[in-house]
Amino acid sequence: MKNIFVRDLKVGNRIEDFFVLRKKELKEYDGQKFLKLELGDKSGRADAVIWDEAERFYHQAEVGDIVQIKGSITTYKDSLQITLESLKKTEEKVELSDFLPSSEKDIDQLFLRFKDMASSVKNPHLKALMQNLLGDSALMENLKLAPGGKLWHHSYLGGLLEHTLTVAQICEKAASLYELVDRDLLITGALIHDIGKIKQYSTSGFIDYSDEGRLIGHIVSGYDLITRKIEKIKDFPQDLALKLKHLILSHQGELEMASPVVPQTLEAIILHYADEMDAKSGAFTHIIKREKTKDKKWSDWVPLIKRFIYLGEEEK
Amino acid sequence: MKNIFVRDLKVGNRIEDFFVLRKKELKEYDGQKFLKLELGDKSGRADAVIWDEAERFYHQAEVGDIVQIKGSITTYKDSLQITLESLKKTEEKVELSDFLPSSEKDIDQLFLRFKDMASSVKNPHLKALMQNLLGDSALMENLKLAPGGKLWHHSYLGGLLEHTLTVAQICEKAASLYELVDRDLLITGALIHDIGKIKQYSTSGFIDYSDEGRLIGHIVSGYDLITRKIEKIKDFPQDLALKLKHLILSHQGELEMASPVVPQTLEAIILHYADEMDAKSGAFTHIIKREKTKDKKWSDWVPLIKRFIYLGEEEK
Amino acid sequence: MKNIFVRDLKVGNRIEDFFVLRKKELKEYDGQKFLKLELGDKSGRADAVIWDEAERFYHQAEVGDIVQIKGSITTYKDSLQITLESLKKTEEKVELSDFLPSSEKDIDQLFLRFKDMASSVKNPHLKALMQNLLGDSALMENLKLAPGGKLWHHSYLGGLLEHTLTVAQICEKAASLYELVDRDLLITGALIHDIGKIKQYSTSGFIDYSDEGRLIGHIVSGYDLITRKIEKIKDFPQDLALKLKHLILSHQGELEMASPVVPQTLEAIILHYADEMDAKSGAFTHIIKREKTKDKKWSDWVPLIKRFIYLGEEEK
Amino acid sequence: MKNIFVRDLKVGNRIEDFFVLRKKELKEYDGQKFLKLELGDKSGRADAVIWDEAERFYHQAEVGDIVQIKGSITTYKDSLQITLESLKKTEEKVELSDFLPSSEKDIDQLFLRFKDMASSVKNPHLKALMQNLLGDSALMENLKLAPGGKLWHHSYLGGLLEHTLTVAQICEKAASLYELVDRDLLITGALIHDIGKIKQYSTSGFIDYSDEGRLIGHIVSGYDLITRKIEKIKDFPQDLALKLKHLILSHQGELEMASPVVPQTLEAIILHYADEMDAKSGAFTHIIKREKTKDKKWSDWVPLIKRFIYLGEEEK
Amino acid sequence: MKNIFVRDLKVGNRIEDFFVLRKKELKEYDGQKFLKLELGDKSGRADAVIWDEAERFYHQAEVGDIVQIKGSITTYKDSLQITLESLKKTEEKVELSDFLPSSEKDIDQLFLRFKDMASSVKNPHLKALMQNLLGDSALMENLKLAPGGKLWHHSYLGGLLEHTLTVAQICEKAASLYELVDRDLLITGALIHDIGKIKQYSTSGFIDYSDEGRLIGHIVSGYDLITRKIEKIKDFPQDLALKLKHLILSHQGELEMASPVVPQTLEAIILHYADEMDAKSGAFTHIIKREKTKDKKWSDWVPLIKRFIYLGEEEK
Amino acid sequence: MKNIFVRDLKVGNRIEDFFVLRKKELKEYDGQKFLKLELGDKSGRADAVIWDEAERFYHQAEVGDIVQIKGSITTYKDSLQITLESLKKTEEKVELSDFLPSSEKDIDQLFLRFKDMASSVKNPHLKALMQNLLGDSALMENLKLAPGGKLWHHSYLGGLLEHTLTVAQICEKAASLYELVDRDLLITGALIHDIGKIKQYSTSGFIDYSDEGRLIGHIVSGYDLITRKIEKIKDFPQDLALKLKHLILSHQGELEMASPVVPQTLEAIILHYADEMDAKSGAFTHIIKREKTKDKKWSDWVPLIKRFIYLGEEEK
Repeated sequence: MKNIFVRDLKVGNRIEDFFVLRKKELKEYDGQKFLKLELGDKSGRADAVIWDEAERFYHQAEVGDIVQIKGSITTYKDSLQITLESLKKTEEKVELSDFLPSSEKDIDQLFLRFKDMASSVKNPHLKALMQNLLGDSALMENLKLAPGGKLWHHSYLGGLLEHTLTVAQICEKAASLYELVDRDLLITGALIHDIGKIKQYSTSGFIDYSDEGRLIGHIVSGYDLITRKIEKIKDFPQDLALKLKHLILSHQGELEMASPVVPQTLEAIILHYADEMDAKSGAFTHIIKREKTKDKKWSDWVPLIKRFIYLGEEEK
Repeated sequence: MKNIFVRDLKVGNRIEDFFVLRKKELKEYDGQKFLKLELGDKSGRADAVIWDEAERFYHQAEVGDIVQIKGSITTYKDSLQITLESLKKTEEKVELSDFLPSSEKDIDQLFLRFKDMASSVKNPHLKALMQNLLGDSALMENLKLAPGGKLWHHSYLGGLLEHTLTVAQICEKAASLYELVDRDLLITGALIHDIGKIKQYSTSGFIDYSDEGRLIGHIVSGYDLITRKIEKIKDFPQDLALKLKHLILSHQGELEMASPVVPQTLEAIILHYADEMDAKSGAFTHIIKREKTKDKKWSDWVPLIKRFIYLGEEEK
Repeated sequence: MKNIFVRDLKVGNRIEDFFVLRKKELKEYDGQKFLKLELGDKSGRADAVIWDEAERFYHQAEVGDIVQIKGSITTYKDSLQITLESLKKTEEKVELSDFLPSSEKDIDQLFLRFKDMASSVKNPHLKALMQNLLGDSALMENLKLAPGGKLWHHSYLGGLLEHTLTVAQICEKAASLYELVDRDLLITGALIHDIGKIKQYSTSGFIDYSDEGRLIGHIVSGYDLITRKIEKIKDFPQDLALKLKHLILSHQGELEMASPVVPQTLEAIILHYADEMDAKSGAFTHIIKREKTKDKKWSDWVPLIKRFIYLGEEEK
Repeated sequence: MKNIFVRDLKVGNRIEDFFVLRKKELKEYDGQKFLKLELGDKSGRADAVIWDEAERFYHQAEVGDIVQIKGSITTYKDSLQITLESLKKTEEKVELSDFLPSSEKDIDQLFLRFKDMASSVKNPHLKALMQNLLGDSALMENLKLAPGGKLWHHSYLGGLLEHTLTVAQICEKAASLYELVDRDLLITGALIHDIGKIKQYSTSGFIDYSDEGRLIGHIVSGYDLITRKIEKIKDFPQDLALKLKHLILSHQGELEMASPVVPQTLEAIILHYADEMDAKSGAFTHIIKREKTKDKKWSDWVPLIKRFIYLGEEEK
Repeated sequence: MKNIFVRDLKVGNRIEDFFVLRKKELKEYDGQKFLKLELGDKSGRADAVIWDEAERFYHQAEVGDIVQIKGSITTYKDSLQITLESLKKTEEKVELSDFLPSSEKDIDQLFLRFKDMASSVKNPHLKALMQNLLGDSALMENLKLAPGGKLWHHSYLGGLLEHTLTVAQICEKAASLYELVDRDLLITGALIHDIGKIKQYSTSGFIDYSDEGRLIGHIVSGYDLITRKIEKIKDFPQDLALKLKHLILSHQGELEMASPVVPQTLEAIILHYADEMDAKSGAFTHIIKREKTKDKKWSDWVPLIKRFIYLGEEEK
Repeated sequence: MKNIFVRDLKVGNRIEDFFVLRKKELKEYDGQKFLKLELGDKSGRADAVIWDEAERFYHQAEVGDIVQIKGSITTYKDSLQITLESLKKTEEKVELSDFLPSSEKDIDQLFLRFKDMASSVKNPHLKALMQNLLGDSALMENLKLAPGGKLWHHSYLGGLLEHTLTVAQICEKAASLYELVDRDLLITGALIHDIGKIKQYSTSGFIDYSDEGRLIGHIVSGYDLITRKIEKIKDFPQDLALKLKHLILSHQGELEMASPVVPQTLEAIILHYADEMDAKSGAFTHIIKREKTKDKKWSDWVPLIKRFIYLGEEEK
């Protein structure tokens, strides 16, 4: 079990603890090999170095592993650095949520609501599909863990489930407002639209893109996954299958956002805006929570959306 | 009162009825002056011509007037044409909804719900503002009549009110989903975000842009209107006023969509996507209703959004 | 068998022949129902009309069917019009190439070269995949028939095969020029990159998009088709599968061109430019052939690429 | 009064002087609180630190205040740092131009020419408006002080007035060249087009955006200000008012440059290009003056306009 | 000499006159060859047809020639058509300004001012260049005739000279406003910036692009022309030559506007905006003059700049 | 001759060697002048400093010179720094390839193939042009040395020749595939398309843009060079000259890529894509070679093309 987090490290202390190995590089200085590392946990990252037996330790663990280390906290170029005496991949069972940021919400609670929404679908073909998905326990375990993004919104364990549920609730509302909407199609689409994100990230020790995430992309991964599930449902109507797959493929809304087709049905255009609303609201919320302090009315410049965000008035 | 609508005119019949004068032009053929006109009502448009006393009739009415005409239905170059004997601006009281397309919903019913939502606002300053608006009966009459757009979505009498209410309901839902949202601010913003559209269109006889609509634009017109209302509310906090005006100014979401500032608050980003969702859903609904027939699975090409829209399966 | 083509029709003649039914619409004039049609073959299109028993004939054939008609050539508003006495869906076996434009090249010859290139692949996994594809005779029949586009380039029967082969030959050259290229991967990718176009068009009687072509798109259709073929090959390496699928998904080169991922491998970037070179050269060639006349040095304005094309000097 | 400027500070010296407080942050190192500051004047910025009674000094002044400090010049990580013994908000009257960069021109001289141009307007309504503005002495004081931009051009005290006058002179020239121009309308528009910048920046101690500058923007602020002034002029014609407001709203020329409407009158299109010419010429001039040295023919890369600027030949 | 202009033709009259041959096409109707033509003059265009000896007349003249015709005014499909009896290329000397639109200004007057501005250049190298240009009488004749554009602004004989002078006058003003400007360089650049347009259009009988205009473009043609002139000036400094050529190459301001380099000197950025201001003002002026009528406050939609233009108030 | 390269420098050693002077700046510290330098060779760059007689040494050499230095390797702020005792511009003959990166291929070999391709042109006019170019030995020496780019692809000595040859070979292939191609025109165009790059870079000691490279650009420089060569060929047909120049001017393919005209001939569109294919393949190859290591499957983020590049599987 972890004893101390990166943000609490103090120069001069001894340390014996678990971290994620984020980077490793074998370097040379004045003819001597040494090992330069980056360690991390959910609270931050720290540089580390091993001077003795660098080459041996280099082979003890791979990037993404949880490692057990011994050493002391020093400084280098005015920054904190952990000087390690030893490092090895741990065999112990650790809490992934110590190493990666997690949703603040109760995942089991979220999952119950996911099941409830799935159960509310009445169209027999879509209902069968959702039951099939719920019955795939490996998939469901992944759904509960997966992040919703790498950098920008819902980028924490459970983020995908959280995002999925909010999108589905906005769609539920929209279904009640627009008479031509096929409610069951829209809700099913909302519940599965980002399912490909399960394959987009590798989350062994920190969140990064998987090869499939980069070479195929989460949209096509999700399309692929759902296509195979549909094939297992007997007599699933072809028109319905096309419309459901279209929801996954078009949900980013524009070609330049990586959707290979643009929304061409009423359900698709609604799903797209529900997704956008939650993605952007999630990002704004994240920035406000991270940056709001007593004196600060404005966030720092946010390059991704090219603006400052208003954090709210100063407290009196 | 109107007897017959454009779509029901039959060649050979006599006609004596009311129409909107949409265009007029004094032309010459073989040395003789004649008057070329376009007449219209909520069901469509028809060409018309006056051969005798063209110049006198030219001065009888202006574009946008409701005119009373006498004549007969003829053809010209294989198209229907009304050959007029007389034309004059009517003095009679007519039903505007005979001449312009109207919402299919009950406007009074919609307005009741608008008042309900306004009443649900608890923040005393915003509540005072909404009461002031509700108390401005001329403004409210305009709100009930105004279209939501010219070409694309909600382009009919009552369209603005319809659009406003749906946006507010989506925002209501969002306020329940995002903890940091100031619900009263968001709902107030939703209810007034497009109020400037009242000044953007001239709807004397058909929907067109007003000079102010083109030279100033509905966003700044709405900003102007609300700024003056806020000044009438005693002690309206300056921060709150800035945030509310920001909702109006930024609701189009991007500079290139004519917002002079981009959304910089959580409420602003939510309002933008609620507005987009309803605008696009309204347009999709409009196209599907207009084009769906038994044999047709796909709409014609829609240039404004560069796509075909899927109308649904063929009926069996 | 067809007797006469659209471009050779002469006013006043009787006609009894086969055409594609391109459009049909039941209309009314002065209380009488009539049927307005568009007929076509590989040489062009013509309007047609049926005055008697319009409703009965309306149900005799669907858009896309090859129909047998009887009638005479008349004019309407200075244009040629076929006045039909009867129309029915044909039961006879017709030559599709009478009705749709076809490649000028010998399709069987092209297909032999396709097989040759497939056989040149030495990597055992890719070789197995290509053999599997060649063994799927229904698929190969479709490949030989499919057009390469609807409007712009290779928009004729056999166009897909023609395009595929030229792209593969450019890639073959590139493989000899760039040392790091995996030649077999690149050639396989070139041979299958547009295979999804088989599902993108419906070519019953004329070329149009299928529902799948619009809602899913040819890129994902091709990805889907190849993914299933790969699964049938025993021990197909996962890395190789990812790289091959990536070639299909990224070959349009940019997200805004409907690729859900951009090229991230050397083979992918080469395939993209080979594809672009042949698509644009095909379009330029098509325009030059269609528009070049003795007096004309410049094409008409080409809206899709916003330029005039130089057709060559005037002949002396 | 200031004794020494940032650019002249030397390590080892004692210091007792006035600066702008640009940033303040209470931090902790090894359990001890300290205060990290940024001080500045018109010549540059310097880091500063307070080790004792950090919390007390934290409350002595706010960002933007002119502070009186005592301390000594030290170094930290190879950079100069001021180690403070005390800091307090000054009560003394200071010269703002010691702390902020100022126009090189004589502001009173510029203002005289502004008044001259205003007086040259003959249209009685526009003349009355300009007189009203000139008579608003608080407004005129702000106009004389305001910068024309934050980062890019005319970003110094008096910059707004300088920019305004040059734009008006270019417009004067254009009015003499184009027969259809309403000269008085154009000159009035030029003189007020950027008046909203008065509210866009907060210049207490350094130039930054105000809340209104960010949430409303200088275009709408200027529109608002002029709209109210117009209302005070009796019988100001509505058409003229619309055209004048349109000049303010459209002067950035394109929606993506934050104008809510594009130029739709001849005067508006001229004003836009006059504004652009002076903005870009001001920026080029600023870069050339700052970077031109004996050996240097080219500026450093200028990210905002993505180019190098030619500074002129090397001197012999 | 011309007797009648296109806009004054009346059905039923005989005609014997000169026109520009704008298009010719040999067609066939019912086995008989006929010749379809478009004739034009400065007042408009008219369709024409020759029924007898079509093939012989086809070879009598080329597109762009001034032709002498005999025939009578008829109608076809409700439009006016000239039925010709004969057509031949004229040998007579005609007034080009009868056939092409011309500047409303006095060209000789404009040219005097051009010479004055050229003479005001004091830098000896630039002065020598301008004298060389003025001494090239063939070039100067072309400059006096050339249009400034094909479709959009200054698209009439003399338009280039008119545009050149106005741009130079705006630059003159700017040179007096910006201290760092090299006035002589800027004025010389303004006077020659569009000189390549002389080669861009073929104006034999109507304005169209020349082959060089399309394949090379007026910017590079102008660069080429001036480069050769500079080489004839002894000891023209290389730096000065680079800066002057840069003015020509960069004056469109952006790569996407066909400048191969962006403005990198102060003179270049000023010249660009002077050019833009006059081009757009010319276009606005042209539209206002063409469309302003008593009843019309707004122009028709102008697709090239995606807006309506305000024409001014209605007259009372 | 060089003894040691930058990448092999070791702290503590004495050094006496040749480097390129990349930057020089006379600075002041505590009242004393010193000289801050950047030195470089083909293996990298290093900072250097001269403390004594800084001003005298400042005048001993210019940026771009090869300098002979004496000194010792020290550190400053944890980075390596060369502390110089002396520096002077060398008079010795040095190997430019020691200081600048060079092609891995044999330049003479490449040049032989360039001559072979030139000889394969059969059109007598184009053949004469190519012979004239080959006979210009100063030009050919420059061609052999010139880099193909500064930052992105073929950015090493000989890179231009390497790029030119590969583009020509792709074009050769295309000429065999497309029937309408003028093979000799295309090959000639390929061989000269980037000839202007000879003037775009100054490569005295390191690769940087020349003044002409920035103010005129390599496209127009190449156009200029070839235009003059064509003029030396007797009876070179004007049409052919236009088409050849068009190949140079349009080869970047789009206006925004700095081509002043877009490709309007079949040869031009092919040359453009051949150029793009080799430029991008060159860049991908460069990145893969530089970044591929045993553990690394993905390149670092490549900002210029906004993606990661897949480097290939991990080795087992």
